[in-house]
Amino acid sequence: MTMKLQNILTVGALIALPTLGLAQETAEVAEVAEVVAEEVAAVVDNAFIFNTLLFLIGGFLVFWMAAGFAMLEAGLVRSKNVTTQLTKNIALFAIASIMYWLMGYNLMYPGSYGADLGEGETSAWLMDGILGPILRLANIGGEPAIASGYATGSDFFFQLMFCATTASIVSGTLAERIKLWPFLIFTVVLTGFIYPVEASWQWGGGFIAAMGFSDFAGSTLVHAAGGFAALAGALILGPRLGKYKDGRVNPMPGSNLALATLGTFILWLGWFGFNGASQLALGTEADANAVAVIFANTNMAAASGAVTAMILSQVVYKKVDLTMLLNGALAGLVSITAGPLDPTLFGAVWIGAVGGVIVIFAIPMLDKLKIDDVVGAIPVHLLAGFWGTLAVPFYTEGTSFATQIIGFAIIGAFVFGVSLVVWLILKATMGLRVSQEAEVNGLDLSELGMEAYPEFTKG
Amino acid sequence: MTMKLQNILTVGALIALPTLGLAQETAEVAEVAEVVAEEVAAVVDNAFIFNTLLFLIGGFLVFWMAAGFAMLEAGLVRSKNVTTQLTKNIALFAIASIMYWLMGYNLMYPGSYGADLGEGETSAWLMDGILGPILRLANIGGEPAIASGYATGSDFFFQLMFCATTASIVSGTLAERIKLWPFLIFTVVLTGFIYPVEASWQWGGGFIAAMGFSDFAGSTLVHAAGGFAALAGALILGPRLGKYKDGRVNPMPGSNLALATLGTFILWLGWFGFNGASQLALGTEADANAVAVIFANTNMAAASGAVTAMILSQVVYKKVDLTMLLNGALAGLVSITAGPLDPTLFGAVWIGAVGGVIVIFAIPMLDKLKIDDVVGAIPVHLLAGFWGTLAVPFYTEGTSFATQIIGFAIIGAFVFGVSLVVWLILKATMGLRVSQEAEVNGLDLSELGMEAYPEFTKG
Amino acid sequence: MTMKLQNILTVGALIALPTLGLAQETAEVAEVAEVVAEEVAAVVDNAFIFNTLLFLIGGFLVFWMAAGFAMLEAGLVRSKNVTTQLTKNIALFAIASIMYWLMGYNLMYPGSYGADLGEGETSAWLMDGILGPILRLANIGGEPAIASGYATGSDFFFQLMFCATTASIVSGTLAERIKLWPFLIFTVVLTGFIYPVEASWQWGGGFIAAMGFSDFAGSTLVHAAGGFAALAGALILGPRLGKYKDGRVNPMPGSNLALATLGTFILWLGWFGFNGASQLALGTEADANAVAVIFANTNMAAASGAVTAMILSQVVYKKVDLTMLLNGALAGLVSITAGPLDPTLFGAVWIGAVGGVIVIFAIPMLDKLKIDDVVGAIPVHLLAGFWGTLAVPFYTEGTSFATQIIGFAIIGAFVFGVSLVVWLILKATMGLRVSQEAEVNGLDLSELGMEAYPEFTKG
Repeated sequence: MTMKLQNILTVGALIALPTLGLAQETAEVAEVAEVVAEEVAAVVDNAFIFNTLLFLIGGFLVFWMAAGFAMLEAGLVRSKNVTTQLTKNIALFAIASIMYWLMGYNLMYPGSYGADLGEGETSAWLMDGILGPILRLANIGGEPAIASGYATGSDFFFQLMFCATTASIVSGTLAERIKLWPFLIFTVVLTGFIYPVEASWQWGGGFIAAMGFSDFAGSTLVHAAGGFAALAGALILGPRLGKYKDGRVNPMPGSNLALATLGTFILWLGWFGFNGASQLALGTEADANAVAVIFANTNMAAASGAVTAMILSQVVYKKVDLTMLLNGALAGLVSITAGPLDPTLFGAVWIGAVGGVIVIFAIPMLDKLKIDDVVGAIPVHLLAGFWGTLAVPFYTEGTSFATQIIGFAIIGAFVFGVSLVVWLILKATMGLRVSQEAEVNGLDLSELGMEAYPEFTKG
Repeated sequence: MTMKLQNILTVGALIALPTLGLAQETAEVAEVAEVVAEEVAAVVDNAFIFNTLLFLIGGFLVFWMAAGFAMLEAGLVRSKNVTTQLTKNIALFAIASIMYWLMGYNLMYPGSYGADLGEGETSAWLMDGILGPILRLANIGGEPAIASGYATGSDFFFQLMFCATTASIVSGTLAERIKLWPFLIFTVVLTGFIYPVEASWQWGGGFIAAMGFSDFAGSTLVHAAGGFAALAGALILGPRLGKYKDGRVNPMPGSNLALATLGTFILWLGWFGFNGASQLALGTEADANAVAVIFANTNMAAASGAVTAMILSQVVYKKVDLTMLLNGALAGLVSITAGPLDPTLFGAVWIGAVGGVIVIFAIPMLDKLKIDDVVGAIPVHLLAGFWGTLAVPFYTEGTSFATQIIGFAIIGAFVFGVSLVVWLILKATMGLRVSQEAEVNGLDLSELGMEAYPEFTKG
Repeated sequence: MTMKLQNILTVGALIALPTLGLAQETAEVAEVAEVVAEEVAAVVDNAFIFNTLLFLIGGFLVFWMAAGFAMLEAGLVRSKNVTTQLTKNIALFAIASIMYWLMGYNLMYPGSYGADLGEGETSAWLMDGILGPILRLANIGGEPAIASGYATGSDFFFQLMFCATTASIVSGTLAERIKLWPFLIFTVVLTGFIYPVEASWQWGGGFIAAMGFSDFAGSTLVHAAGGFAALAGALILGPRLGKYKDGRVNPMPGSNLALATLGTFILWLGWFGFNGASQLALGTEADANAVAVIFANTNMAAASGAVTAMILSQVVYKKVDLTMLLNGALAGLVSITAGPLDPTLFGAVWIGAVGGVIVIFAIPMLDKLKIDDVVGAIPVHLLAGFWGTLAVPFYTEGTSFATQIIGFAIIGAFVFGVSLVVWLILKATMGLRVSQEAEVNGLDLSELGMEAYPEFTKG
């Protein structure tokens, strides 16, 4: 962006020079200069508006994903835990908003708050990040990422949504047994510290970016990170009562597949913003073309993941399994997220298809390991996230499989490690898990005293 | 906009003058002029397109809020009244569209229909407002608000959605006891007359605007107005059977909290359009920046309202209450609506937090007054709307607390008074309330003969 | 677009000519030329970005319609068939995406894949349509529709959604009795062959377009086509068990009207993209104005269809019928789709109202013919689609009723005929219909072994 601005100013000078020379005979030299400035400003202006608009549209689409996770998870838990799951999902989004404002944005893009943005007003409201200047000291490496070429508010709005998405991933895995408040406190740490720090290593210009790691829209930084935090929680928390009994896996079917399907459609829709607006610019023909390619590829990967999971569930289990189909679509989406721009449409199709394969084989595998992941978030977000990250070098020049694996491992180790510590501290202090009686009766009654469907379910 | 157009035309003249002087030696004077005109047109064009696009995106997001109200209300009523609540919500939107076309738009922006818009076609289709020329005579003060700098159709589309939102607010409060048709007839009056008249006093350039009243996106004009109309109806209609009995408040839990949560997420999403597009322009860098700030502030206020209501419900009632959390988010949104542009992010947080506090304390207070507001619309829209209006002078220069209170009182008195009269006339003529038997059996059977969930609920 | 590009290049020449003449005295001739090129590029650029953005926004809105159909249909079937209906809806969208990529896009816009798009990269990824070059030979007439003035990826994304919409229409009619896999195989043929071929006759520059047929956004090409495919299936498949018994029509009420209403709201929202982005351009003031008029007209037609159906259901059946109201809104939308740009707002209102009338009288008529259309898709999409197509000449110059009828008949005969053959082949080979026992127990258990609401319904 800054480069583009300079190009245009150079062009401005090129217009000015000859014209000024010719205009010496007339007295209107000053006016000509003004006109050139105006014209140049108009061109710059439009790029600024387009870029900002991309962030805002992308941001509201990713916001919508929070509703998608809420519906998906509310549909996949049993009715006695639906109110709790809904509460967690809307509360975690609200908490992520507050924490990303208080700490996350500044931690992730060090220097943003205090930077001279050339817009006194913008700079002023960013200074509200009261903890910002302090926490900036805690940041690990990287150049300041000064906003330019778009409204800082639109970047803040967009980036905040990614932070919230990371937290949304965790809530599904741990459903039906975790206490409300410890979960929310974990969300505070995840959105205020864990996510911003690991994301800054790449997107804040940190050391993983310097290594050549490539993660366009966050297969690793958002999805696998959320998956690692969830995995740590699932290990500490243990499976639901009766889930693994006498060597058998006891299915606990979701209470409302219409909601789960709605949630998946919402996520699919929101992902166009998630990946598309991660182009971060719409002000040139090339950027517009890139965003269009990303939209098309994102859709192909989702479709391909869904079809693959559907066919495989027919082949392997002899029946189409709707929840596998939904998770297949989501795994396709996660798989393309690390590199949605460079693959051909065919590339998006096969990358997404592998995501669908992962879902079919990883969900039973987790059950064998007795890791109880209520909604399948670990296969979808962590494993397909790894796959998507790994697949980048097939289409993106300048990347390597080794670096992708190393980058993934570093992020994974950090997020898993810190999450484990936080979960353990929470377990030791407040306790993580509801009582056996509360779990049997449902968290809605024990934790909240409010049923989601008071008239529908049997006593 | 008009000013911007003039600036650019001036710039055009500045280009033309010196160039023409130089071009005298050549014969191409006419061509140069044409070129200048083309270039100027291109710049103007983009602002026109951006502004129109903002209205269209904002408009479809606010349209989506109609679905949000429908889901929120359908989730918060008992299952025996769900079909009726759904019917009211989609019908009221359709009626609002028709009435705003027939009467509202012209009443609110007098002169728009007959104006020479420089686009014969546009002007022509606006003349379809067959009652327009007559009703314009009934308008109360204010300069004509001629559309310029954006497509009139996009403005009509966007403004129509605000009119419909006002009506959506009313349906929730009066649920579970009001007859269908009297409610719809009230909607006709509200959307064709009450809302357009009061909104014209501010946004049509009327006398409240002249006083210096400030209401950016409608904390008073839309939300409190809807709340006042609902309050008038609730007073005339009385509480649901058995709601207040033997001095106790009998809770009547909503039948589907997943729908209510979905509705809240939809409203939150739609609000980005509601507040953001109320900037009314996106054609300059400053406008784009403003829209971005509004998006960020709107989100912070909602998040803060939600977190505040959640924590307070834990402290006051010892359990987190999901419906309080949802209403807290909505109250945060209503609170920031009067002034979403000027506050800092911290300002948005504390203004939204006060909205959350209002919800926690006002909902039980209404019950003490035996005002039965089924979904909490009066606290959320009327009271938080008052708070949002009152808070404007903390951040917006040139406003005063006194003027804000006076403007609010004038709008409130007008909407409440006229609504009261309309409700009383409807009560005296058609009757407002279903029979006791119909209320006990549910409005779905008595009013519509169609259950929302025929297979789920017990006998 | 191409024309616009040429205009601008001409303008560029006009700037260059006199300036070059004047600049001979100085040495900066080259710089001036460069500057002119830059300025021209900037103007072209913005139109390209706006057009692309329109396709992307329109595309994601039409994507959202897939969720709308899923919710509408899941709400209108009985609970024992909900999982199957959800599965069909998400699977058909995924299949449509794959087939439209493999065959459809190239078949519909012959030449697109192989064309020199001036963007090596874009051209390259389109070449992924591996079957493209072969199937292009099978195409029937018409000039190649070379993409220009917008990103090809955005056009592909947008057009794909229309293909998927056509398939969505079919699933509702055939619900509650058709086997999953034959339905999906029909979807493969519909989205890979039937839709692209008939749509190419008009939008690919084929022979119906040459006749002067007019269908702006697809009342015939999408909606009636989907309806014809559904009708053919319904005739082969026969009605649900017990639907028509002893000369009476046995009502089988939908299991979840909240979902059905949500689906209708989603469709209404998505339709702004469906019709609005069918303007195909947003790069000029005139285009922006056109898109705005389309949004406003689309909304008026939906509102008018809804109000008309509501009032008529009260008059005819003495009770407001929510499903009629929902279908009235949808019929209003389908009715305006063939010509959403030219009518006045009043035109949109009355055209939509006729759509509402059609719903009220055609739904019982179909029952008299014992054609079992579970969700009313034939009246809404086929009949209102015919009406919308027929109504175009009332407002659009250069169209004739005769041509509209002939075009509709050709499309109808082709889609109905080919669909009938495909359904018959599927019936003869795999069988179309589940066993009587499976139908009674519900397709969710027999086809998928997975209930949508396992805890809610009575044994």
